[in-house]
Amino acid sequence: MAEKTTIVLFSGELDKAIAAFIIANGAAAYEHEVTIFFTFWGLNTLRRDEYIQTNKGLLEKTFGWMMPRGSRRLGLSKMNFAGMGPKIIQHLLKKHNALSLPQLIELAQEQGVRLVACTMTMELLGLQEQELMDGLEYAGVAAYLGDAAEAKVNLFI
Amino acid sequence: MAEKTTIVLFSGELDKAIAAFIIANGAAAYEHEVTIFFTFWGLNTLRRDEYIQTNKGLLEKTFGWMMPRGSRRLGLSKMNFAGMGPKIIQHLLKKHNALSLPQLIELAQEQGVRLVACTMTMELLGLQEQELMDGLEYAGVAAYLGDAAEAKVNLFI
Amino acid sequence: MAEKTTIVLFSGELDKAIAAFIIANGAAAYEHEVTIFFTFWGLNTLRRDEYIQTNKGLLEKTFGWMMPRGSRRLGLSKMNFAGMGPKIIQHLLKKHNALSLPQLIELAQEQGVRLVACTMTMELLGLQEQELMDGLEYAGVAAYLGDAAEAKVNLFI
Repeated sequence: MAEKTTIVLFSGELDKAIAAFIIANGAAAYEHEVTIFFTFWGLNTLRRDEYIQTNKGLLEKTFGWMMPRGSRRLGLSKMNFAGMGPKIIQHLLKKHNALSLPQLIELAQEQGVRLVACTMTMELLGLQEQELMDGLEYAGVAAYLGDAAEAKVNLFI
Repeated sequence: MAEKTTIVLFSGELDKAIAAFIIANGAAAYEHEVTIFFTFWGLNTLRRDEYIQTNKGLLEKTFGWMMPRGSRRLGLSKMNFAGMGPKIIQHLLKKHNALSLPQLIELAQEQGVRLVACTMTMELLGLQEQELMDGLEYAGVAAYLGDAAEAKVNLFI
Repeated sequence: MAEKTTIVLFSGELDKAIAAFIIANGAAAYEHEVTIFFTFWGLNTLRRDEYIQTNKGLLEKTFGWMMPRGSRRLGLSKMNFAGMGPKIIQHLLKKHNALSLPQLIELAQEQGVRLVACTMTMELLGLQEQELMDGLEYAGVAAYLGDAAEAKVNLFI
């Protein structure tokens, strides 16, 4: 039976998302069954670029408007410099022939990494399925725990 | 023998504490033996609401005065907006019939989740037992490692 | 066979680095084989105090100049107060006869904790071996995953 690896991606920053996907892709290359469980701000990694018309409450609308839309718009956990930091990191990734976050996500999907959006947080923050990218699973903490209990490597990022 | 789950709660933010307790309560519902080890800013989650008269050094007093007193006063790791963010999250939790952090803590205690305060950090930050809520255990990193070495799911939050 | 413990130190803050090394030293005292994998901002923990002349691109130079040089210069994840916070923590560690971060690192090396610098991040941020302390190993995410898959305790800090 394949080894399992799970990652909870709670944080919504570019650098942490990159770290999560590099570990996930590495584990998938070793034939681990890998699951990333996106919760809280981590869900922003999965948002579509474009504005999606939805029908939601004012608070949820405000949250949706203030949170970054997708993997191209995340900030850094350090040295963000009002948005300059992410551009520099993106530039450095390109210069060193490393994958960008959107490319890392695509590779993960190609390798069969399961990307699971936390339904409880989606409800809380007012995020709807049509606002998130294709190819996701939707589940709650119980599903995460079921995977984690069978995995050897479990990280919270 | 029951499966074990351990969580180190290092961070002192509302959103991370909520995530920690949701995972802990989920694991306890699956009959895991769950331990949350509170260290550094995570200890603030356990502080009593009310001001407690203590006898301590000036620096420790200042730290005690600047750190939030308990689970109702924690900030957010993102979108804190000078204290507005936590109120919005608390409102959204209520609106969606989700448990508040104080309720999640109570449920954890009812389910037998062990809440362990790190004695070394308490000494360092000058926190005293009378400042923390009832029903806690007090231990050091050795006790945490003993639990973690027997657990399958170990998270640092 | 000895139990294994791995820690990814991603964060570049004093408080998180202290937590990582306290856990690592505790596990080593229990005869675990312990590896700390330093990536992203965590690499700053390993930088030499002194300025090292290097030959690198402008962006990498700027990053190198803006990031803290070594374990004596890290900030705090909370209550940093423009650099006062770390001084207070260092003072409190001393007052309570606890080890400082440089001492914790030294103890870890004496106990055989493996300190591994992530080569991919080094390339990305433009950090060179001569800028980092002695006694390190250099490896990529594949090596980390090899260790983590054999370990019971795996933390991301």
